[in-house]
Amino acid sequence: VSGSASTPIGVIGGGAWGTALGLVALRAGSPALLWVREPELVPAINERHENHLYLKGVALDPALRATGRLEEAAACDILLLVVPAQHLAAVARTMAPHLRKDAVLVSCAKGIETGSGKLMTEIIGEALPHHRMAVLSGPTFAREVAQNLPTAVTLASSDPALAEALCARLGSRHFRPYAADDALGAEIGGAVKNVLAIACGIASGRRLGDNARAALITRGLAEIVRFGVRLGAKRETMVGLSGLGDLTLTCTAEQSRNFSLGMALGRGESLDKILAGRISVAEGVYSAAALVARAKKLGLDLPIAEAVDAVLNRGAAIDATIASLLARPFRAESEDAILPA
Amino acid sequence: VSGSASTPIGVIGGGAWGTALGLVALRAGSPALLWVREPELVPAINERHENHLYLKGVALDPALRATGRLEEAAACDILLLVVPAQHLAAVARTMAPHLRKDAVLVSCAKGIETGSGKLMTEIIGEALPHHRMAVLSGPTFAREVAQNLPTAVTLASSDPALAEALCARLGSRHFRPYAADDALGAEIGGAVKNVLAIACGIASGRRLGDNARAALITRGLAEIVRFGVRLGAKRETMVGLSGLGDLTLTCTAEQSRNFSLGMALGRGESLDKILAGRISVAEGVYSAAALVARAKKLGLDLPIAEAVDAVLNRGAAIDATIASLLARPFRAESEDAILPA
Repeated sequence: VSGSASTPIGVIGGGAWGTALGLVALRAGSPALLWVREPELVPAINERHENHLYLKGVALDPALRATGRLEEAAACDILLLVVPAQHLAAVARTMAPHLRKDAVLVSCAKGIETGSGKLMTEIIGEALPHHRMAVLSGPTFAREVAQNLPTAVTLASSDPALAEALCARLGSRHFRPYAADDALGAEIGGAVKNVLAIACGIASGRRLGDNARAALITRGLAEIVRFGVRLGAKRETMVGLSGLGDLTLTCTAEQSRNFSLGMALGRGESLDKILAGRISVAEGVYSAAALVARAKKLGLDLPIAEAVDAVLNRGAAIDATIASLLARPFRAESEDAILPA
Repeated sequence: VSGSASTPIGVIGGGAWGTALGLVALRAGSPALLWVREPELVPAINERHENHLYLKGVALDPALRATGRLEEAAACDILLLVVPAQHLAAVARTMAPHLRKDAVLVSCAKGIETGSGKLMTEIIGEALPHHRMAVLSGPTFAREVAQNLPTAVTLASSDPALAEALCARLGSRHFRPYAADDALGAEIGGAVKNVLAIACGIASGRRLGDNARAALITRGLAEIVRFGVRLGAKRETMVGLSGLGDLTLTCTAEQSRNFSLGMALGRGESLDKILAGRISVAEGVYSAAALVARAKKLGLDLPIAEAVDAVLNRGAAIDATIASLLARPFRAESEDAILPA
């Protein structure tokens, strides 16, 4: 990795997660320059040291610098890309002329692009080709990371030396990156888990109980692995922090936006009404259809994701959808197993 | 499986889980005969249709029959063994003379025997040899099963035809057994997860956040798999309902006895005081030392389980133990991975 610890790390995207990652860089000893889309966030972060839009109430390290000029942040040696999945392609294209030739790109966004069905590294690789790339993903509520609570993530690159250098550059006592060589595998969990979290939320909102949620998480992980393996990812990556870890987090905590959206649906609220009351993105709403379409093209059966897509986008009734999931025939656990023998 | 749907299934053990399994048998169309240790539970269940000691407030199907005579329940064709891990050996020995020659034994208990370090099927196999055996395990809060909320479990036997026959005999619309051929693998999760749930509870009680808990669950599953694979279990089984599913359930819900015990420890209460206030067993307190001892004999490193054992049994301070877990060097995620490449 080029750049010493005293050159700034550029963080592209000033939502909750981007802001928290700026603090992560500072704690690891690097300056951090955060590009924010909303102009009002520049003085908020630089002068009042608060991101009142996305991390209200968290006192930020005064050393965190925000800028509204994308070209300024894009000129850093290491760039953490933390733009919501549905805006990543546009931002990446805008950044392109400003990148250093040797800039390292770290994908920190999660999701699947609607329409194209592309994963984050596919979008980045097309808009910003010829750059070394890594994926940072794991169970990370941004607010907890901002508060310096203990967090572990996968940091994966097909170049193992790059993954290790980035771990050293970003890791600190309470933020623990684990190096891996399977960048594709490290983004599959983040791409699928939001859809599954909506399923778990619906089950909780319908008061189906904790047993049902645990079964959904387990069978949901099997869907993540099936999808990832078909794309060429390693099973082991998806059973680690970026897959199982993030899935568990997203499916068990009401602070998860996707889980809480599912809860509201399960309690009988309409999707339109739920979305109207929110500023932050519940990524699963956008990526469900793209995930199911891409899986179908690959010849894969993802019953839980399909059920969520049907409820969100095709007017399926929740109780009938649950009943049909429960009515699937008894089968061997390994028949569509995560790890066929 | 011998016996038609009209011959009773014997359930050995009238705690919450045994009582719920009696209801499961009834819902699947079999009569159920429940052996209870406490004499007062016989009239409570047979006449008042409530297990006021272990499932207070749940109205039981009047068809559920309880008996205080072990020899009567032990004479059934199919026996579900649901005695707490630390009492299983004694009960199994007492049952021995009363068993039919062709009786099928289904281990439904979870844990490790203190002192011996034995798993449930090892205890059953020694006390009741020459019987066909299966393991039923998964994410199953007994109260939810009793209330007929949707639940999925692994039902495993080295004899696949037996596993399938038992699935047909016990499955119903809301209780969904998945057949598997790895009985050993199906009991590893239940043996280890209670210890890990105490770790997650401690972290929650100390307010370390949801990210830390998700990391503990993920790294904890790696410990389950490491232990199981060393004993000869299949990785795929432990990433299924009996492993990952049960671990997730036990580590994320306050109704879990082990998780809530950990929470109390994390908030600073003493173990003696916590145990004095409970009637039900928090199995992890008993099995932590046995698990760690058996792992050591096998040459395995289980850092989270060892930390729990140190806190419970060797007076280790919680904050220092957490700090030393966090101070472990950064490493590759696959270095001690669940699924080495």
